[in-house]
Amino acid sequence: MSHGGDLESYKNCYDGELVDYSSNINPLGMPKGLEEVIVDGVKKLEVYPDIRYRNLRNYAGKYLKCKEDNTVLGNGAVELIDNFIFLAKRILICIPSFSEYEERALIHNKEVVSISYKEDFTIDIQALASTVQEGDMLILGNPNNPTGIRIGEDELISIYNIVKKNNGFLLLDEAFFEFCPRDYDSIELFRKTDYINLGIIRAATKFFALPGIRLGYGCTYNKVAKMIGENQLPWNINALAEVAGSYIFNQREYIEESKVYIEKERNYLLSELSTVSFIRPYFTNANYILIKLLNTDEKCVFNFFLHRGIIIRKCSSFKGLNKGFIRIAIKNRKNNNKLIETFKELDRLKVR
Amino acid sequence: MSHGGDLESYKNCYDGELVDYSSNINPLGMPKGLEEVIVDGVKKLEVYPDIRYRNLRNYAGKYLKCKEDNTVLGNGAVELIDNFIFLAKRILICIPSFSEYEERALIHNKEVVSISYKEDFTIDIQALASTVQEGDMLILGNPNNPTGIRIGEDELISIYNIVKKNNGFLLLDEAFFEFCPRDYDSIELFRKTDYINLGIIRAATKFFALPGIRLGYGCTYNKVAKMIGENQLPWNINALAEVAGSYIFNQREYIEESKVYIEKERNYLLSELSTVSFIRPYFTNANYILIKLLNTDEKCVFNFFLHRGIIIRKCSSFKGLNKGFIRIAIKNRKNNNKLIETFKELDRLKVR
Repeated sequence: MSHGGDLESYKNCYDGELVDYSSNINPLGMPKGLEEVIVDGVKKLEVYPDIRYRNLRNYAGKYLKCKEDNTVLGNGAVELIDNFIFLAKRILICIPSFSEYEERALIHNKEVVSISYKEDFTIDIQALASTVQEGDMLILGNPNNPTGIRIGEDELISIYNIVKKNNGFLLLDEAFFEFCPRDYDSIELFRKTDYINLGIIRAATKFFALPGIRLGYGCTYNKVAKMIGENQLPWNINALAEVAGSYIFNQREYIEESKVYIEKERNYLLSELSTVSFIRPYFTNANYILIKLLNTDEKCVFNFFLHRGIIIRKCSSFKGLNKGFIRIAIKNRKNNNKLIETFKELDRLKVR
Repeated sequence: MSHGGDLESYKNCYDGELVDYSSNINPLGMPKGLEEVIVDGVKKLEVYPDIRYRNLRNYAGKYLKCKEDNTVLGNGAVELIDNFIFLAKRILICIPSFSEYEERALIHNKEVVSISYKEDFTIDIQALASTVQEGDMLILGNPNNPTGIRIGEDELISIYNIVKKNNGFLLLDEAFFEFCPRDYDSIELFRKTDYINLGIIRAATKFFALPGIRLGYGCTYNKVAKMIGENQLPWNINALAEVAGSYIFNQREYIEESKVYIEKERNYLLSELSTVSFIRPYFTNANYILIKLLNTDEKCVFNFFLHRGIIIRKCSSFKGLNKGFIRIAIKNRKNNNKLIETFKELDRLKVR
């Protein structure tokens, strides 16, 4: 299992509806009203999407607060990751992180150099500075998956400067950024640079709870945005993703409510899980929590939760982690309580 | 304009609804009942599509009458074209043909060798046989776009044997195959070969009138299908395309009705257009007609039709054609009559 969300593989293992704690989707579900907007748009399936996605680009630019010619759009964030990697010479990744960085790089025959995060999963700036070479593309999850740690504002500027000094490219995968507290916004932070040597990727997948619609968006230097547009497949984004984009980016209330909701549940889960003796949850800025297992392994925990109808994310498939880690999503209070109870139940069994 | 269907660019040029004769979509529209199926599926946007598309692959395999492990699925036919090209060393194309064959090959840094179709747009087998080299991938539209000519059964076997003898790969782009008369089925024809050295691509785009949904499917050697699956982006097909696939492939009546409808309108249009003196329509097996302009050019004809609310396809963007060609779709009787009347109107003006 190299990705979460694969319920199909486990549907016969539990007699009831599985609760998916392995994929990290906004527990509020898609924005209210979107369903009607999509239903109204079904007839658009009979015509090609705009080959230049003019409206969608306009909406995304306004939402991200960047110019239209700095925006990039993709068939999910993962297509944009692929598009950026395609332009690179050599790829630097920090591990553990989203497996597709390396996957896509290898598919495109790029050399991949891995740097380990420090033990607390913060970035080893010294190791980074001594590794980065002329023209390298550094990919960082911000916040990183599966660790949940967001790069600090000053740290981010330092990293950007290291990369820029080497004529490199900093690619920030911010698929979960919208779940984070509002201390800073990377797109605002780098506006003055015109995003030269920089790419920032976000997506409707996680924050707008639309993994099925396949819509990624982001911001980069205008010349890079143009190159990506030229290399992409025509009509790479489906017509209903185009329809959704015209709606979701304007849902201010939903966006605010989601941030508040996740913050509250994040604090609740972190607090409750801290009382479970066999695990060590890591602090997170995202809508998921990495957990170190102190005296058991991912398989035991996975199976225990599966038998109670909960799918968690085993983490040994992340390079740089081992069987001693799992990741859980942050969902609604009812499910979070079920999750906490299951942890506590297992804790009691282990203690005996 | 390197592709048809770009209504967005012309919406301000005509005061009324434009009729799109530049893209070749089934005039019956999407299968009846599909709208309801998709509307019922909207909630699926909140979960990831099955990362292995197990059900979709099963439905496609049954529809195409090939084994599941021979099927390939894509974000539209164009993604599959790209996926096959990615595996090739050198690409042979016949011109004029769909511009993306060369586009995608160049993006992937493949050498491209062009062979011209003969003057009647049939394949120059001798030129082909003397050009094909060890390991080449030959891409042929079947029927070809924009010419509408389908490769004959015996001719196709000869071409396959030439390619196979050179350890090459024959890629058939059959995005319009389902519109053709039922003389033969390429998937059936090559079943005995297990599709070694062969790929066949079709799509929901044209025949099922779903350009917005982005669903391509096809059939190839099982080892090639596996490689393509491994190279593709995860979740490349959106959840509603997955839903649509569970429905459209079973619509036997719609499939039959579409074939009959297109055949009737094809004959009607070919017959009516043969009376227009300034054009020479080519015989076609597809749902579009290539037209040679005898004493005018594409721009004049395009503008004349645009002012009457009809978008036709200029063909000079096809390598191997010049400004003396246009392509029109085959649509419903009402629109076809409007199209014919507009040709006749222009004919009268030209004659004066």
